[in-house]
Amino acid sequence: MTWTLATLATRLGLDWRGAPQTPVVGLCEPQALQAGQLALILDARRLAQLPPDAAGVLLLSADLAEQTALPCLLAADPRAAFAAALDLFYPQLPLRHSISPQACIDPNARLAEPVEIGPFAVIEAGVQIGPGTRIGPHCVLGAGSVIGPDCRLGPRVVLGPQTQMGERVIIHAGTVIGADGYGFYKAEGRHHKIPQVGRVEIADDVEIGALVAIDRATLGQTRIGEGTKIDNLVQIGHNVQIGKHCLLVAQVGIAGSTVIGDHVTLAGQTGVAGHLHVGDGVVAAGKSGITRDIPPGQRVAGYPAQPMQQEFRERAALRRLPRWLRAQRDPE
Amino acid sequence: MTWTLATLATRLGLDWRGAPQTPVVGLCEPQALQAGQLALILDARRLAQLPPDAAGVLLLSADLAEQTALPCLLAADPRAAFAAALDLFYPQLPLRHSISPQACIDPNARLAEPVEIGPFAVIEAGVQIGPGTRIGPHCVLGAGSVIGPDCRLGPRVVLGPQTQMGERVIIHAGTVIGADGYGFYKAEGRHHKIPQVGRVEIADDVEIGALVAIDRATLGQTRIGEGTKIDNLVQIGHNVQIGKHCLLVAQVGIAGSTVIGDHVTLAGQTGVAGHLHVGDGVVAAGKSGITRDIPPGQRVAGYPAQPMQQEFRERAALRRLPRWLRAQRDPE
Amino acid sequence: MTWTLATLATRLGLDWRGAPQTPVVGLCEPQALQAGQLALILDARRLAQLPPDAAGVLLLSADLAEQTALPCLLAADPRAAFAAALDLFYPQLPLRHSISPQACIDPNARLAEPVEIGPFAVIEAGVQIGPGTRIGPHCVLGAGSVIGPDCRLGPRVVLGPQTQMGERVIIHAGTVIGADGYGFYKAEGRHHKIPQVGRVEIADDVEIGALVAIDRATLGQTRIGEGTKIDNLVQIGHNVQIGKHCLLVAQVGIAGSTVIGDHVTLAGQTGVAGHLHVGDGVVAAGKSGITRDIPPGQRVAGYPAQPMQQEFRERAALRRLPRWLRAQRDPE
Repeated sequence: MTWTLATLATRLGLDWRGAPQTPVVGLCEPQALQAGQLALILDARRLAQLPPDAAGVLLLSADLAEQTALPCLLAADPRAAFAAALDLFYPQLPLRHSISPQACIDPNARLAEPVEIGPFAVIEAGVQIGPGTRIGPHCVLGAGSVIGPDCRLGPRVVLGPQTQMGERVIIHAGTVIGADGYGFYKAEGRHHKIPQVGRVEIADDVEIGALVAIDRATLGQTRIGEGTKIDNLVQIGHNVQIGKHCLLVAQVGIAGSTVIGDHVTLAGQTGVAGHLHVGDGVVAAGKSGITRDIPPGQRVAGYPAQPMQQEFRERAALRRLPRWLRAQRDPE
Repeated sequence: MTWTLATLATRLGLDWRGAPQTPVVGLCEPQALQAGQLALILDARRLAQLPPDAAGVLLLSADLAEQTALPCLLAADPRAAFAAALDLFYPQLPLRHSISPQACIDPNARLAEPVEIGPFAVIEAGVQIGPGTRIGPHCVLGAGSVIGPDCRLGPRVVLGPQTQMGERVIIHAGTVIGADGYGFYKAEGRHHKIPQVGRVEIADDVEIGALVAIDRATLGQTRIGEGTKIDNLVQIGHNVQIGKHCLLVAQVGIAGSTVIGDHVTLAGQTGVAGHLHVGDGVVAAGKSGITRDIPPGQRVAGYPAQPMQQEFRERAALRRLPRWLRAQRDPE
Repeated sequence: MTWTLATLATRLGLDWRGAPQTPVVGLCEPQALQAGQLALILDARRLAQLPPDAAGVLLLSADLAEQTALPCLLAADPRAAFAAALDLFYPQLPLRHSISPQACIDPNARLAEPVEIGPFAVIEAGVQIGPGTRIGPHCVLGAGSVIGPDCRLGPRVVLGPQTQMGERVIIHAGTVIGADGYGFYKAEGRHHKIPQVGRVEIADDVEIGALVAIDRATLGQTRIGEGTKIDNLVQIGHNVQIGKHCLLVAQVGIAGSTVIGDHVTLAGQTGVAGHLHVGDGVVAAGKSGITRDIPPGQRVAGYPAQPMQQEFRERAALRRLPRWLRAQRDPE
């Protein structure tokens, strides 16, 4: 597929600068830029790193464009424009209406049309699947699960019984939704299982990475709110409630019954203890350990997590402590 | 299924208070309590949060019951009673003696009766499965594995060759038991593999969460002791020995050859270095990093992990350090 | 299989000491040593722990051998010799040229001979597999993936489309290569997906543990360099570049676009932020949190990670801080 700078700009609804016939045949990373390629440039540092004899087309903001002589697509939101360009150059495969003869589908499952079901998928009794949804190979959809339209489940996703899923949900390979929560009571020195009979509800436009574990509730629902995006290898305990439009980065763990507000960002490897409230708009730095409620809008870091400013002050003080103690003739 | 307060109390062996004909049709979380529902109340805070016009039945201790006028089931151990009620209202599906025709079972496997084998399970030569055991869809049971009676393997559990498993073991979806340990030696700047030929032994009444990795021993056995409960996404290295009745919470990692005693609790995201001894009854707070042997009964926190009291003293001192340094006119 | 000390020494190319006819029938851990067994002894502590009446054969360095009267195999590199002995006593099963009739193989896939394909594997269009490679049960090989010769994929490995893999690569059960990276842009309070259309390249002699997630690049390649060994439950973000002969221990996480040099060791649960450079030969202690570029050869620890010496000085100072503050009559 070959575009010219001018036709591509029209298609993406962008301003442009340079020879209108400049060809664009593909997208690439900035360091691989060459004639015929389009690269996204997000900041001046990346722009400065381009070799002096670089060829190709840049996608950037109008003010950055003043610092280069290369042909440019000018975007108010370069990331959004680049996402649109990716869709254009690498269109998703169209949905085939195809149900693998090697899938194992209960006669009491209800599949809308069109759907795509991969080989060796197991679809238990009472499952409902909305139109436009793709179920990858080896998925196991537990009895009574309901999956909305236009969802995409990668290979080997497991849904426990009664899982509820909205529209346009994406789940990547190997993720397990709805395994038993970690609930025990102790008697006579032994741990005894508390049956876990609730389910998981996943709202519209959620994306969940690979190898994520989201446990079913003891009773009621574990909930993932609309538009929330979950990275790989994240753990979400039973009865956790996650709000809308949150970002949970890789290897985050959230213990049981904790409530996370809307627009919360938990950076990688953050842990949140159980039965807490994390307010709307909270941001936690990587590796934070949240051990008490966090009020809305607070930015936290460290373990135990505290406001970033206090955490950074303490780190700076600790940096100087060895020298200070020496200077004071430490009594030890 | 509808019970009355009186018949339910009799069935569960509990005292009760209120109108004997009060109906109970289901169980719910306290915040969802309404007429006909039974909720577990563990503390006064939860009790106080009930709305003034709440209806329904509470399951709680006798002393908490004095603080409410609602009908009550009175239990010395409310969690245990609630677990029994969950079993009553949500009985496990009875085992079907059913072996999926889509499973791939080696003729030299020995399956007791009754067992349940899901579609697309792969059961290799020499595997033995005890009576009453359920093997979920897509499980792969490596050659020579022995699984005791009344076990339950969720979908997509992998057992490496020669895995030994006791009675009533529960393993959730996606868990991998018996992959190769991480063993290499270095020669001429390259890492060379040390073959891993041992196995994993899992004692009676162990429960293992979803997406857990437990590596086979280099030689001999990696062992999980009786009654130990392991949460999701936990890593257990080769030749690790875990004692009885331990709790390993989500995302814990234990490096190779470490020995963990009985009744040990490792809270979420704790890491334990290799070749260590962690004594009986040790408790480690979340995100602890254990880097040396821990004597029995010690409660530790922090990284490197140390006795909680010392860790908390240091954290408190660090909290005050920035102000202190300013007050002392830091020489910098 | 029974060897004598003398014939075993000859076969392994080692010196030996003791009665040449001493039988060796198997290998074991030092604590399980008995007549007929061979155990690896790496240090004086392990040697001293042997019971006074121990029988069997030891594999150790010549200088350690002076401290024992037991028959010995003497090796300049005892680990390497033990690995060779493991291969001898527990030889890998020979490759069968066998393609399971229950695998689902696209007619446009190209399989060399001999290969081994397990039941319920899904091999999509355009996949190429080199000779001597084993594909475990339930593997899903995405369209256009290329797998070199003599690779070994355990059960349930998923490869995304266009994955490239060199020779002698080993991947353990449940690992997901090539799921979408975690890429979104924000507009009007919502996160929108940036399509992920790149791939993953894995060089020769890489080994990857169980339940690892390695995301495909947004564009271009996520790369794992030659000879690198990755432990279980590791997360590698999109566009990450890992050098040669690195060790990434369990539960490490590396955020998107970070570049890791050659011969880097990241100990367990270490996290590395995105868009960083970690130089050749860097060593990070367990649970490190790397938040800026690390120059080659540096040894780091802590969070934020800093040179080990500085980190250890600070920890020591913090240990003494509570007492110091008390002694100074803290003004609070």
